[in-house]
Amino acid sequence: MPETRVAAQELEAFAAAIFEKVGLSPEDAATEAHVLVWANLRGIDSHGVLRIPQYVASVERGGMNPHAHIRIERETPAVLLIEADHAFGPVVTTLAMRCAIAKAAQVGVGWAVIRNTTHQGAMGYYALMAAEEGMAGLAIVCNPPNMAPTGAKAAGVHNSPIAIAVPAKQHGALVLDMATSVAAFGKIQLAIDKGIPIPAGWALDQDGNPTTDPRQARILLPAGGYKGYGLALMFECLTSLFAGNPLLEPILLHTGTVRPGTQNSVVAAVNIAAFGDVEAYREHIDRLIEGIKALPKAEGVEEILVPGEPERRVLAERQAQGIPLPEGTVRNLREVASRLGVPLPPALA
Amino acid sequence: MPETRVAAQELEAFAAAIFEKVGLSPEDAATEAHVLVWANLRGIDSHGVLRIPQYVASVERGGMNPHAHIRIERETPAVLLIEADHAFGPVVTTLAMRCAIAKAAQVGVGWAVIRNTTHQGAMGYYALMAAEEGMAGLAIVCNPPNMAPTGAKAAGVHNSPIAIAVPAKQHGALVLDMATSVAAFGKIQLAIDKGIPIPAGWALDQDGNPTTDPRQARILLPAGGYKGYGLALMFECLTSLFAGNPLLEPILLHTGTVRPGTQNSVVAAVNIAAFGDVEAYREHIDRLIEGIKALPKAEGVEEILVPGEPERRVLAERQAQGIPLPEGTVRNLREVASRLGVPLPPALA
Repeated sequence: MPETRVAAQELEAFAAAIFEKVGLSPEDAATEAHVLVWANLRGIDSHGVLRIPQYVASVERGGMNPHAHIRIERETPAVLLIEADHAFGPVVTTLAMRCAIAKAAQVGVGWAVIRNTTHQGAMGYYALMAAEEGMAGLAIVCNPPNMAPTGAKAAGVHNSPIAIAVPAKQHGALVLDMATSVAAFGKIQLAIDKGIPIPAGWALDQDGNPTTDPRQARILLPAGGYKGYGLALMFECLTSLFAGNPLLEPILLHTGTVRPGTQNSVVAAVNIAAFGDVEAYREHIDRLIEGIKALPKAEGVEEILVPGEPERRVLAERQAQGIPLPEGTVRNLREVASRLGVPLPPALA
Repeated sequence: MPETRVAAQELEAFAAAIFEKVGLSPEDAATEAHVLVWANLRGIDSHGVLRIPQYVASVERGGMNPHAHIRIERETPAVLLIEADHAFGPVVTTLAMRCAIAKAAQVGVGWAVIRNTTHQGAMGYYALMAAEEGMAGLAIVCNPPNMAPTGAKAAGVHNSPIAIAVPAKQHGALVLDMATSVAAFGKIQLAIDKGIPIPAGWALDQDGNPTTDPRQARILLPAGGYKGYGLALMFECLTSLFAGNPLLEPILLHTGTVRPGTQNSVVAAVNIAAFGDVEAYREHIDRLIEGIKALPKAEGVEEILVPGEPERRVLAERQAQGIPLPEGTVRNLREVASRLGVPLPPALA
C-alpha cells in the first residue's frame, strides 16, 4: 500500500489547525491533536489522525461539542464526577487525569468519573500521564453495545478497553492498553483492506452467526470467553452507571437512544509514594521487565515482550522517520483540509 | 463420585473449631471458616473446606501464621498499607476491606494494599463486602509465578484473579471473580479426577511444551493470550510492588526465595453515593441484568448468565440441601479432625 511519511510535529500542527477551525480553543485543539499524534507515533493508527474527518463530521452533526461547558459536579478529596457536555475526549480526559493525579498526590488515590465524553483516543495515554508522575494509572471507557455476551447472538456489551500503566526507571513504563474483545474493529478493517479472512472466534455477522468474512463482521466476540464479557459488563457499571448515564440499558431494553459518540469513562491514579519508596518501585519494575524478557522462549519466538514495548519501538522509528499515512488517510485529510481551508503539511500538499 | 452432604452451619462450626485448635482466636477462626464455607455454598469448592488440611499443614510448617501481628503501616484518608505478617488471608483481607469501605464512605474511594497475606479464599467475597454497603468492590491478588507470559515456555507471572462486584436492587449483586488464566489448576485437578484430557491451550508441561494430559500440566496459559498475560503482570505491579514485596522478580532472576504461601493483594471500594443516587444505581443494574438476559440466544444456549448468577443458583440449592463433599475431601477432613482431636460434624462422623 503506498504511504506518505509526515513528521509528527507537522502532523500535529495540521491537526490542531483543523480542530481550531471547527471551534476548539487553541489550547483544546493542541491537546486533541497531541493525543491523536501520540497514538500515530506509537503505531496505534486506528486511534490517530485517521479519525479527523469523522470528528469534523461529528461536530457538524452536533455530536462532539467544540464549545463544551465542562463542569465538575461532585468532588471530595479523593474523587470527582465530571459532566463533559460532549467535549472532545482528550480535552476532558486530560483534565480528569490531572485532577486525579492531584488528589492522589494529596491522599494517595484519585478517582475521576467522566459523563458524556466523546472519543478519547488511546486510553493508554491517560494511564501513562499518571505513570509519568510516579503513580499507577488506570483508564476505562464504555460505549454503546458492539460485543456479544457469552451465549448471546447480539451485541449486549461494549468491548470496553482498559489501560493500566506504571513507571520504570531505566526501561520505559509498562503500559497495558487492551480491549475486552478478541480483536477490535480496527483489525477487522485491516483484514478488509488486505482482502483476507478473519480467524474464527473474532466476530458474528448481523444475524449473530459466526463469520470469518471481515466484510460481514458486525458484532465482536469477547476475549477469553466469559472473562472478556464479564470485564466489559463490569466496566459499564464502573463508568456509565457511576455517572448515572447508562449506555447499554437503553439499547438493550429499547427504552431510549444514545447521542452518537457518547462515552463514559473513569480514570484513576494511585500514588506509589503513599505506600513506599518510588525509586525502589521503579527499580523493581526494571527487574521485573528484565526477568520476564529473560524467560526461555517458546519455539519460533524471537523475543518476549512486555506491555508498552511494541509501541515504544514504533515510536523510536517514527520519531526518526516520520509517521507513515496510507493513501486513504491522506486522501481523507486532503479533502477535509480543502473544505475547511486549512493548509496541508508540506509532505501531504 | 460418592459424596456426603453437610449443612453449611455444621461445616462452618467444624472449620472454626479446627482453626481455633491451630491457634487462631475464636473471632479469627470464625472469619476464616465463614469465608471458606461461603465459597462452598456457591459451588467454588476449590476455595472451600478442601483447603483445611493444607492450611493446617502450612501452620505446622511455619507458613500461615495463626498469631499474626497485623499492622497498618501507612494510612491517609483514602488509602492504607497493611503488613499482614502471614495472617490467614480472610482475617486480614476482611479487615482491609472494612477499612477501605470506611474510607470510601468518607472520601468516595478506599484503596488498601496488603503485604504478606496468605491464601485469601475466593476474592469475590471481599468485592461483595463493598457491594453490600452500596459500593463497587475490587479485589486483586498476586502469588509467585505459575503462568507463562505470551511467547515464554516457563512460568513468569501468576494467574492473578480479579474480583469486581456492584449492588443490584431486586436481583443479586453482579460479582465477577476470574483468574487471568484460561483455566485454573482446580479445573485441571478435576480433569485428573475424571480421567479426561484437558483442552489444548490450557497448560504447558514442565518443559514448557503444550500438553492435553492434565497430569503433565505444570504451567498455566493466559486467557485471551497477551491480554491475560498483560493483566497478570500489571496486577503484580498494583499489589506486590506497591507493597514493596515482589513475588515474581526473585523467582525470575533467582535472587531470592518467597516464603511458601505468601500473597500480596489490593482491595478497594468506590462509594456510589459520592457520585449520585444509590437507589437509582441499583435500579440501573437490575435493568442492565434484565437487558442482557433478554438478548437473543446463540444456538444450543438455554440462558444468558450474568457474573455471579451461576454461584447464586448453587447457593440456593446448597442452603436447602447442604454442601456435597466428595469422598476425598471427607477422608482428608476426618484425618485432620482425628489428629487435632476436633469432633466431626454428625454427617461426616
